[in-house]
Amino acid sequence: MMSEVVVGIDIGGTYTKLGFVGRTGKLFEHQRILTNKYVAIEDYIIDLAETIEAMSARANHPPILGIGIGAPNANAYNGTIEAAPNLKWKGIIPLVALLKKYYDLPIVLVNDANAAALGEMYYGGAKAMQDFIMITLGTGLGGGIISNGQLIQGYNSFAGEIGHTIVNVNGRRCGCGRKGCLETYVSATGIKRTVYKFLADSLQESALRAMSFNQLTPKMIGEAAKAKDKIAIKAFEYTGRILGIKLADSAVYTNPQAIFLFGGLVKAGAYLLKPTIKAFKKNLIPILKEKIAIRVSELQEQNPAILGSAGLVWDKLSPGNSK
Amino acid sequence: MMSEVVVGIDIGGTYTKLGFVGRTGKLFEHQRILTNKYVAIEDYIIDLAETIEAMSARANHPPILGIGIGAPNANAYNGTIEAAPNLKWKGIIPLVALLKKYYDLPIVLVNDANAAALGEMYYGGAKAMQDFIMITLGTGLGGGIISNGQLIQGYNSFAGEIGHTIVNVNGRRCGCGRKGCLETYVSATGIKRTVYKFLADSLQESALRAMSFNQLTPKMIGEAAKAKDKIAIKAFEYTGRILGIKLADSAVYTNPQAIFLFGGLVKAGAYLLKPTIKAFKKNLIPILKEKIAIRVSELQEQNPAILGSAGLVWDKLSPGNSK
Repeated sequence: MMSEVVVGIDIGGTYTKLGFVGRTGKLFEHQRILTNKYVAIEDYIIDLAETIEAMSARANHPPILGIGIGAPNANAYNGTIEAAPNLKWKGIIPLVALLKKYYDLPIVLVNDANAAALGEMYYGGAKAMQDFIMITLGTGLGGGIISNGQLIQGYNSFAGEIGHTIVNVNGRRCGCGRKGCLETYVSATGIKRTVYKFLADSLQESALRAMSFNQLTPKMIGEAAKAKDKIAIKAFEYTGRILGIKLADSAVYTNPQAIFLFGGLVKAGAYLLKPTIKAFKKNLIPILKEKIAIRVSELQEQNPAILGSAGLVWDKLSPGNSK
Repeated sequence: MMSEVVVGIDIGGTYTKLGFVGRTGKLFEHQRILTNKYVAIEDYIIDLAETIEAMSARANHPPILGIGIGAPNANAYNGTIEAAPNLKWKGIIPLVALLKKYYDLPIVLVNDANAAALGEMYYGGAKAMQDFIMITLGTGLGGGIISNGQLIQGYNSFAGEIGHTIVNVNGRRCGCGRKGCLETYVSATGIKRTVYKFLADSLQESALRAMSFNQLTPKMIGEAAKAKDKIAIKAFEYTGRILGIKLADSAVYTNPQAIFLFGGLVKAGAYLLKPTIKAFKKNLIPILKEKIAIRVSELQEQNPAILGSAGLVWDKLSPGNSK
């Protein structure tokens, strides 16, 4: 008999990534489609379903037991996406209801960074943990908090939005409408803004002066740092210091055993991690000193949101077995 | 038959407050002893036990079913108090083990502000809530976080120390050894420091210029505010603004249904609450706008730490019944 699978879906601003996930977290038949190509959510759902069918055909039609979805601004309680700044669909999108028209299966929707935290818990470095925090560093900064072995979603399902804690009330303009949110400093976009600030403030020569803001990527900044570019190194130090200070705040909220970092920025390795850990240790409440590890996600080369949202479905189908 | 009781104990830096708590949260036979009179923890335990015996005699020896204790820097997992800055007993104090020598009963120890959160959940304004935060404003600022209907204690039992989130890394010196913690601004001591800063910076006349730092109390500042003292009013505005901004951070961590405020500072009413709510609303992530209430504790005239720690014992004796 063919192995049963759950479809895991990670909806991002640019791409939607899909995969079939086996009971033990094996990911196969992954595929991606453009998210923002679709102005009408109905057209997107049609293509999403067609993509799942094509994947299913290639995999010889394994039994699909459910669908898990991670998405920005997901309301897990209502199965909706609400006013997501990076998506074209405005207002409240009843994603689960729309997909239910095509699939009479268990469908769960969770916030994308929450899904990533679940991925780390089911299949990554947090398998043995009851209390940890996952930080995803992409275009923005996402957070997923696990306490008492459970995902913290809160009263309105918007818990864990650590990217929107405030660094400076008079700071950088944020997509959420406020100023100085953590993700305006610590994210792919945040570090680009920092590089540009330093290029503006200083006369330091830098390879990054040849890059337009639109061209610039965290990968380029990482490569410049490796080539000893002072602006690039300073940008990582600035980014890491702010991240470390705010993670010291995170630590006193839920006292995690570890904080996992995931995403493109993490590929810069020590350039980001060293200043992050230094600022974290310096600013951590003494009673927790040496008690909380900052670690790179063990799913860094995979897609924790696909794995986590699919794992949540597996967990609902047979509690405990997927862990 | 006499009503069964649980002993609730609230250990503070100055006083230890005790009471008998019935199954439905009725508090009676309360008493207090000085905490910091005792250099040796063993002497303190003896007097604590004698006080309980005296209370028991006065109440005609009701059956005592257990003891609940709220204390600063409590490690709930180990039954110890660890390096509490405001207590005379240094190092790690095995409080539960010491008390077990006198009482062969269920004894639970939790962080004092966590106990207060449990009190609000069992017997106060959060009876119907699964997700809320309790803020206690005393000498310091304590926090208790309830998510998914459970107390968040974290990996080391030190979760909820919201008073030690950082407002300004170069700010006021904190008892914890760092600088700029929230409680150096928002607490009985914090507002006194703010009054003194304003008295130093300005030439504004103020009744508070007649008070020494040691004499000054939040109650006096509240009375001065009611008498339209500009320094006092400005001190509450400054305090409330910082509290509101940091509570907006709290909101994105665990997305509570409500945040309850308890303690001496809350007695100033609108002088504190108005700037707090204003700054909270202004700085709250838009997706949560109008969704989170800031409320005064319904146990404001009682002792939520006694009620909560006793309630936790009741809950362990017969889950769900105390709620």
